[in-house]
Amino acid sequence: MKTIKLGFLGLGNIGSGVARVLAANKTLLQEESGLTFEIVKVLERDPSRLEALGLAPSLRTEKIEEVTDHPDIDIIIEVLGGQEPAASFMRRALEHGKTVVTANKSALAPTWEILDSAAKQSGAGLYFEASAGGGIPVIDVLNHSMQANHIAMIMGIINGTTNYMLWRMKQEHMSYDQALKEAQELGYAEPDPTFDVGGKDAAFKLSILASLAMRKHVDVEDIACVGITEITPQDLELGGEMGMTLKLLGIAKDQGDEVEAHVYPTFLPDSHMMSAVTDAFNAIFLTGDMVDDVMLYGRGAGALPTASAIVSDIVRASKAQRHEYQRFFAEGNKAKVNNKKAASRYFLRFEGEDTQSLKTALEEKGLKVMKTATAAGQCAVLIDQVSEEELDRALAGCTGCLAAIHAEV
Amino acid sequence: MKTIKLGFLGLGNIGSGVARVLAANKTLLQEESGLTFEIVKVLERDPSRLEALGLAPSLRTEKIEEVTDHPDIDIIIEVLGGQEPAASFMRRALEHGKTVVTANKSALAPTWEILDSAAKQSGAGLYFEASAGGGIPVIDVLNHSMQANHIAMIMGIINGTTNYMLWRMKQEHMSYDQALKEAQELGYAEPDPTFDVGGKDAAFKLSILASLAMRKHVDVEDIACVGITEITPQDLELGGEMGMTLKLLGIAKDQGDEVEAHVYPTFLPDSHMMSAVTDAFNAIFLTGDMVDDVMLYGRGAGALPTASAIVSDIVRASKAQRHEYQRFFAEGNKAKVNNKKAASRYFLRFEGEDTQSLKTALEEKGLKVMKTATAAGQCAVLIDQVSEEELDRALAGCTGCLAAIHAEV
Repeated sequence: MKTIKLGFLGLGNIGSGVARVLAANKTLLQEESGLTFEIVKVLERDPSRLEALGLAPSLRTEKIEEVTDHPDIDIIIEVLGGQEPAASFMRRALEHGKTVVTANKSALAPTWEILDSAAKQSGAGLYFEASAGGGIPVIDVLNHSMQANHIAMIMGIINGTTNYMLWRMKQEHMSYDQALKEAQELGYAEPDPTFDVGGKDAAFKLSILASLAMRKHVDVEDIACVGITEITPQDLELGGEMGMTLKLLGIAKDQGDEVEAHVYPTFLPDSHMMSAVTDAFNAIFLTGDMVDDVMLYGRGAGALPTASAIVSDIVRASKAQRHEYQRFFAEGNKAKVNNKKAASRYFLRFEGEDTQSLKTALEEKGLKVMKTATAAGQCAVLIDQVSEEELDRALAGCTGCLAAIHAEV
Repeated sequence: MKTIKLGFLGLGNIGSGVARVLAANKTLLQEESGLTFEIVKVLERDPSRLEALGLAPSLRTEKIEEVTDHPDIDIIIEVLGGQEPAASFMRRALEHGKTVVTANKSALAPTWEILDSAAKQSGAGLYFEASAGGGIPVIDVLNHSMQANHIAMIMGIINGTTNYMLWRMKQEHMSYDQALKEAQELGYAEPDPTFDVGGKDAAFKLSILASLAMRKHVDVEDIACVGITEITPQDLELGGEMGMTLKLLGIAKDQGDEVEAHVYPTFLPDSHMMSAVTDAFNAIFLTGDMVDDVMLYGRGAGALPTASAIVSDIVRASKAQRHEYQRFFAEGNKAKVNNKKAASRYFLRFEGEDTQSLKTALEEKGLKVMKTATAAGQCAVLIDQVSEEELDRALAGCTGCLAAIHAEV
């Protein structure tokens, strides 16, 4: 029975989850993988976190080199969160030939090319199943089950906080502020919720998922990002009357030479599988040219679901004869992201209930109105496919438009 | 660029699909895998099938040994369907050291132990991603992403024909016969639909999925199987009034020393993700002790989705340094299946609309009525957890019970 020696960067919520999974399901993991796992060093300021897990105080260090340069360590688990110092620490580990398993989209997405290159040069592995979709095994599926497919589109509910909030706002006709407060009370939202509600968390994850799906590097800097802070219960209600459900979606579409890539609040038909995803659950939906539609659903966050993904990476890395690197970096294959040309349907919300005059006014500007709805002094229309450019032009001289929301219907 | 040489057993709908995927996405597959694939021999009676794909007539044979014993062939794709001769042919191939990729649950499930053993002895691989859930990458997920989890429960909508029929029966208040006729016209159901509507197709697939999830061999012979032939639109309507949706589910649950394993029509809450699976789509839902709930959704049948899964197996098999075998066979770890003791809620349908008398009568027999519904001269009750044994006893002296259907609510 081979023993794999592990170093931890951080032993917070996720790191402790990994240690707990390794301890609780030790026998199962031995049987499944033929391996045992030993924690030999932990970068952590707080001694009580080791104590809580029954780990010897001597395993703790506050010096990164005692983990990255440790002669016995095979795999380093990076669960610090945030871009720095996590990204620099991972780079140092990879340069020292240590395989890295990370759950940290904030560090991975912006420095992925540097990390992939460092890994490739030293022959170490870089594994990141837990960095998008939490416990959902979407990275492995994209890497190892979709080789026969050109993927035309991938869309994800990849932020649980906002999914919870939009669900509650619709269900209870709650305001944004009420839903945020509830999410904070449940521990789903941080005291400063900007990273989640502004869409940045989803953009980091979309960068990773879209790159694997499109087989081109979709740089997080190129991903257009609109959060849910401007969404009102009226949007959800009026959209609901049109048979649509609002989700914060990360979407990437193959548009030939260009890629469409954005995180937007987006309406889906109520009958779409993604509309059934409630609470803080995540889901990733893709369309391949051979497999057609596939969806993966599960918990996108939480210590144990995330640890489940990290441990599957630890086993995968331990058994790999040769680690895999991203072809798109080696080939300099960067996606040209363009969101201005792609056509979409739009939900538009206005003051007043006079849908007939509104319809006439919008149609004079070249927009085709497909559906209308009214509620409590406001109205909304669903307009047919236009590009963002065309919509901006049409709405330029138009007063009273309170919201314009993408609709994938 | 290494060339992998392929032999085909059968070039029907699925086999032709594989050949089409290999041709259509040849460049992508080369880039993704670093491999090229060449079809060198095809067991097939009908020359026109090779012709339709532009394959040379000289590749065709009607002698199995010309494929299984072919010195150049690396991997044999078995897509004949049916138990025999497919199972014997696979065994022969494995004994000759040829890795086998199969989509054939009817041949795999009943002879799996023999095939696994033959593969292990010769060092060949046995791959079967397409044998359950079609294009859905559920086998890979169970094998390589759930190592950190004890799986308490797995349930699947793993027969598209019956899912289509139940969906249409509810949607259009259609009779079973009408729904079957429609499914046959669409090509979803065979002229003799017994294999699908009787639940046997789902039982073969459940045997495979449940064995991987429970890490014990769940023999298809031990799986209790009830199809949808007795389901009426009244069941769907009355269940609908109770907020439930009917699905034909293959379910396996870890009950400690025993395993519950059955294919039954089963009610789920309308809010359950599986209730949103319409048309002929499939989905597999599981609960792990660490990852919590995970669901995978996609096309469970069709030439190209199935071929997508087969091609992912071909790539996986080609890149494997060492093939994997089932630990439960090596350890003689067979599941003790017992469906009599496990408690479940039940939907019961009766003649008449007098729910009050019915409730009293059922409660006198020790059944707890949770919900009632009436429609057009019939009524139904939802009763709380009882075992099959207890239910049988309670209903023994009870007249007028028209249907008793499992409810996972």
